[in-house]
Amino acid sequence: MLRAGILGASGYGGAELIRRLARHSGVDLTGFGSRQYEGQELQAAWPQLAGTGLGGQRFADNDTVIADADVVFFATPHGATAPLVAQARAAGKLVVDLSADFRLSAAAYAEWYGGEHPAPGLIADAVYGLVELHRNELPGAELIASPGCNSTAASLALAPLAAAGLLGDDTAVTIATGISGAGRAPKQVLHFPEAMDSVVPYSTGGRHRHIAEMEANLGRLRAQDRDRLETHGPQDPPGITFTPVRVPTVRGILAVCSTRPAAGAPATPELLDLYRDFYAGDAFVHVQDEAPETGAVAGSDRALLSVERDRRTGTVMAYAVLDNLGKGAAGQAVQAFNLANGFAEGEGLQQEGRWP
Amino acid sequence: MLRAGILGASGYGGAELIRRLARHSGVDLTGFGSRQYEGQELQAAWPQLAGTGLGGQRFADNDTVIADADVVFFATPHGATAPLVAQARAAGKLVVDLSADFRLSAAAYAEWYGGEHPAPGLIADAVYGLVELHRNELPGAELIASPGCNSTAASLALAPLAAAGLLGDDTAVTIATGISGAGRAPKQVLHFPEAMDSVVPYSTGGRHRHIAEMEANLGRLRAQDRDRLETHGPQDPPGITFTPVRVPTVRGILAVCSTRPAAGAPATPELLDLYRDFYAGDAFVHVQDEAPETGAVAGSDRALLSVERDRRTGTVMAYAVLDNLGKGAAGQAVQAFNLANGFAEGEGLQQEGRWP
Amino acid sequence: MLRAGILGASGYGGAELIRRLARHSGVDLTGFGSRQYEGQELQAAWPQLAGTGLGGQRFADNDTVIADADVVFFATPHGATAPLVAQARAAGKLVVDLSADFRLSAAAYAEWYGGEHPAPGLIADAVYGLVELHRNELPGAELIASPGCNSTAASLALAPLAAAGLLGDDTAVTIATGISGAGRAPKQVLHFPEAMDSVVPYSTGGRHRHIAEMEANLGRLRAQDRDRLETHGPQDPPGITFTPVRVPTVRGILAVCSTRPAAGAPATPELLDLYRDFYAGDAFVHVQDEAPETGAVAGSDRALLSVERDRRTGTVMAYAVLDNLGKGAAGQAVQAFNLANGFAEGEGLQQEGRWP
Amino acid sequence: MLRAGILGASGYGGAELIRRLARHSGVDLTGFGSRQYEGQELQAAWPQLAGTGLGGQRFADNDTVIADADVVFFATPHGATAPLVAQARAAGKLVVDLSADFRLSAAAYAEWYGGEHPAPGLIADAVYGLVELHRNELPGAELIASPGCNSTAASLALAPLAAAGLLGDDTAVTIATGISGAGRAPKQVLHFPEAMDSVVPYSTGGRHRHIAEMEANLGRLRAQDRDRLETHGPQDPPGITFTPVRVPTVRGILAVCSTRPAAGAPATPELLDLYRDFYAGDAFVHVQDEAPETGAVAGSDRALLSVERDRRTGTVMAYAVLDNLGKGAAGQAVQAFNLANGFAEGEGLQQEGRWP
Repeated sequence: MLRAGILGASGYGGAELIRRLARHSGVDLTGFGSRQYEGQELQAAWPQLAGTGLGGQRFADNDTVIADADVVFFATPHGATAPLVAQARAAGKLVVDLSADFRLSAAAYAEWYGGEHPAPGLIADAVYGLVELHRNELPGAELIASPGCNSTAASLALAPLAAAGLLGDDTAVTIATGISGAGRAPKQVLHFPEAMDSVVPYSTGGRHRHIAEMEANLGRLRAQDRDRLETHGPQDPPGITFTPVRVPTVRGILAVCSTRPAAGAPATPELLDLYRDFYAGDAFVHVQDEAPETGAVAGSDRALLSVERDRRTGTVMAYAVLDNLGKGAAGQAVQAFNLANGFAEGEGLQQEGRWP
Repeated sequence: MLRAGILGASGYGGAELIRRLARHSGVDLTGFGSRQYEGQELQAAWPQLAGTGLGGQRFADNDTVIADADVVFFATPHGATAPLVAQARAAGKLVVDLSADFRLSAAAYAEWYGGEHPAPGLIADAVYGLVELHRNELPGAELIASPGCNSTAASLALAPLAAAGLLGDDTAVTIATGISGAGRAPKQVLHFPEAMDSVVPYSTGGRHRHIAEMEANLGRLRAQDRDRLETHGPQDPPGITFTPVRVPTVRGILAVCSTRPAAGAPATPELLDLYRDFYAGDAFVHVQDEAPETGAVAGSDRALLSVERDRRTGTVMAYAVLDNLGKGAAGQAVQAFNLANGFAEGEGLQQEGRWP
Repeated sequence: MLRAGILGASGYGGAELIRRLARHSGVDLTGFGSRQYEGQELQAAWPQLAGTGLGGQRFADNDTVIADADVVFFATPHGATAPLVAQARAAGKLVVDLSADFRLSAAAYAEWYGGEHPAPGLIADAVYGLVELHRNELPGAELIASPGCNSTAASLALAPLAAAGLLGDDTAVTIATGISGAGRAPKQVLHFPEAMDSVVPYSTGGRHRHIAEMEANLGRLRAQDRDRLETHGPQDPPGITFTPVRVPTVRGILAVCSTRPAAGAPATPELLDLYRDFYAGDAFVHVQDEAPETGAVAGSDRALLSVERDRRTGTVMAYAVLDNLGKGAAGQAVQAFNLANGFAEGEGLQQEGRWP
Repeated sequence: MLRAGILGASGYGGAELIRRLARHSGVDLTGFGSRQYEGQELQAAWPQLAGTGLGGQRFADNDTVIADADVVFFATPHGATAPLVAQARAAGKLVVDLSADFRLSAAAYAEWYGGEHPAPGLIADAVYGLVELHRNELPGAELIASPGCNSTAASLALAPLAAAGLLGDDTAVTIATGISGAGRAPKQVLHFPEAMDSVVPYSTGGRHRHIAEMEANLGRLRAQDRDRLETHGPQDPPGITFTPVRVPTVRGILAVCSTRPAAGAPATPELLDLYRDFYAGDAFVHVQDEAPETGAVAGSDRALLSVERDRRTGTVMAYAVLDNLGKGAAGQAVQAFNLANGFAEGEGLQQEGRWP
């Protein structure tokens, strides 16, 4: 049994880690870090745990949680996380980091997050935890950088195209995202009466930081494809024009991606075959004929994908849905952790969503 | 392993039974009945199962489901259910009935549901499945009548008062109920734009059929209390003035109950002690100091209760929340089934809710 | 034309006052007070005004708004409002106060809001602005204390009973309230993912301050009734056991009230007649046969009421719905202002709601 | 005063027409057609009108409504509308048609709606009612074909680009749309528990009929631009790859449009200037610096637009929001009617939205 601690355990990502690790057969949950609730019982932050065994356990300070654990899951804000990760790594702990701090190269981090990386020496150790694209690199990983929710959706939706040389030079990604993805801290724009009945674009025009991950993921696949073909294709990375849109749901991301392959697009049945082949061994990705809806993945650790060629314009449309707190966060973090440590890939996870 | 079939498996109650029985260690799910989807795969009705092992299984006709099972769960409409139950019982099958058909005496059924009971000979065999109030009667039960969601909420909220002689002669129960409780069939009043932003009283003024269950449950406890005390108290059953209110949430019931004990009310701490004693052995009921919210039980199989004496008027206020599809339906059905058949009470169930 | 200023113009009550006064034929809107947005354009706070004539006007400081106006509407927090009202009154301005500061007697204020009243000398001048109950006192009023939204709903629902001697000594009022009633400032419990799918009782057990208004309103009617009958009835004020419940809608209040008249209750048709007679001259109250839903009053300045006798228990159930920002706040404030100043009662208001 | 009748008056479009025409200074509302509610009072269909003067009026049959009116507004289903329009035109009535029946050429109608047009002889008389693009053609129009809500949003968002030769050959339009746009008839996918928490793409891949209008509108502008420049540009019409997405709001459409001008894109400030010039005389379109949100137009008859060049990829992103029942339907129908008949453009309409 691995002793596991969770930092940021009073946030939404933390709650989802608790849920999955509490039922994980290879893990003992030994610590729950929270600056806001330190010393209080879990049920003070989490009404859904009131009166349960978990609910009576207590939040602790970060040092204690790190010290008591074999593996530490970080659901803490970017920037603040890297020093804590360095502390944990120095103490020999395994790390699964759900923040953005170890997802990018030092250069990309500086460009998108501003300033120097707080722990550049650890970047080389980090394995990017998008399991379906990095399955072979994860076994034995001691520092997992778990991807962003939008990046996961767009990268899964477009990866088969990128790997097959079918990604155009400019790809538009519009993502409708549930509000839990913005975290648990109250804000004016997330205040119920403001958010309830509005659909709100934000960080448009190339400003959202998840673009860096999308382009890195897809560029890598594109480059591999060209190496394989020994051809010289379009410049890497591909351009992603990303428009995030906040919609009044609690959970769920829908990515709608349009791209125009330079050499034209295969018909829809061939595109579906391409996707099914690409994800043939992946239990937590499912390719279906019809564009999926977010309601089908709420509470699930899977992504559902579809793809088609517009019957008139020939543009390729790729779709992905996932639960931003499941496959988009805690689910894939545990999935990568499982691969890194030799557990069954689905341990602690669930494929099925709830409905309604 | 018991072979279990579910009738009404394409409705919300059916989906929740599937979820719980699929992870139940003592059950093999052998059949899924649906008139609407007969012959189709489960994923045709349930997008959240797309691409899973369950999703590829097929809906069958009722006869086949009954024939293949040791135990049949009925999530079918009232009236239509009793003949199917009779068929299953005649074939020696265990029955867990989530419809209203075996909850009431023949006389009460005739009064509230109209006309003669379709299978009166079976009523005497039925054990009412509100576990916390019928724990000792359930072992060995072959026909379980699982309670209505509103009845469960109000009965759990008021049972300790009834058993202690503290229920007034008229008790007002106002219940806010999520819309999944109305079932999966589309209706004008449940059409999203009509339902989305409205709070709607319905079946007011003594017309809702769940009143019959509430009064039966509470009257029984009241009578037991008087027998115990060898006193002669107020007339049975107690009068329940019930106002159901539809609110725009998917899951969750909040019962707000007010009553004025004839002899005056104990103070809030004594009331809380009374409730905690009453439910001391019940893992799926939790009594807390503060009035609970429905968000804390969505996805859970528990009820959360609280009670207080109004600091000015002395009226006793009792509160209950539960997930109408969990503790209010499929959860308690499986819980009662577990007790009847010697499984651990919580097998297939979960205490924790999701949040958010 | 009266020059009108609004303080608290960047809050929800302020926005609703702007909407109504901007179309009022007897008013020039001359000032918009906001500490948070002082100096900025209205459209900085109110996206729905972007690019309109109103949107380009600017928020000012309170002193300027008061100085420039003949009448000042206060949509400012309780406690902070009374000194500003005193300032406005000293300058000879008419005042319509939507805060709680002048609704209660000094004694009741001290009891419910804590500490001494900040401007006790003005309390005697204040006319309580619940038009349907104070129609004759409003003409000429220079300081109008506009009622609380919950108080308005409960008082309108129960007033005909109180005036007819049909209010029991203890009345339970359960109110489902939309979240805009809690104001525009972000809070944890109003954060979209927490509030979205939960039904939440709060300030239960006799703690909500609107009880003071309800009891004052109903007690006055009860006393008048007894004076009229020259009888000696039950003690004033009547006891109100009030349970507010937050539901995930933006606008709308539903009051569900249960009471047991000491002498028994008339049948439903007589109760409906009683209500229709009581509100015969009131264009902004409508009595209907069926319990109303909040969706029917969103965006309206009316209240819809109904009443019935429970067919089994004989308890009288009274219902009211209103838009907490309309008839519950800005609508009735403008309505009372109209009566005070000789305008048509409905000037600036609208009876119809929107749907959907 | 023009006598106006509304067919389809028990649907959402009908309710919005009632609201606007009831306050229109040049119109007497003389008839309300509804097959479902014929003979009943308006308040039977519309709870928000209960007890108002409007609420007591009665739905009539279509023939009566047409006979009594000078102008007939059609909020009836496509296909069924054309014969009724023919009947009204034969009787010399003015027609404002909100259905799709007269928006397209006979050829386009046959392609997108199937089969022959039911009244081809009238198509030539129809003036397309997108005011901002057809302002000069509307005066005197006797048959107005009011545009589809999605077509309006996309066409307004992209028109300035098309007119300036800046529309690429393939443009991706992703539209998030509120559920009221799907009409008032209950359906499984619009059932509250299914729709409440899901984001659902539908009619993807080039199948949505509003594409025909978008391409016609933009192609016309593109052709005009080329005529003006005497150049030979890209083929007309432009290709629109349209992905509609249903989101759980009641009202509101957000169009997110991405296009890559062949000759490169101007910088964002120039794009904004271009848009502001294009819509300089249009009171019901507002161009703003930031991408707009749907909450700002709920209840309004305006569209809010913005445009920018992605700072990294150079793709031009254009955004539009409107209330699908306001500017997307009844609002623009009345706006076009006003222009056709010499009323002030904004008569019966409102610029401001509600918030919250």
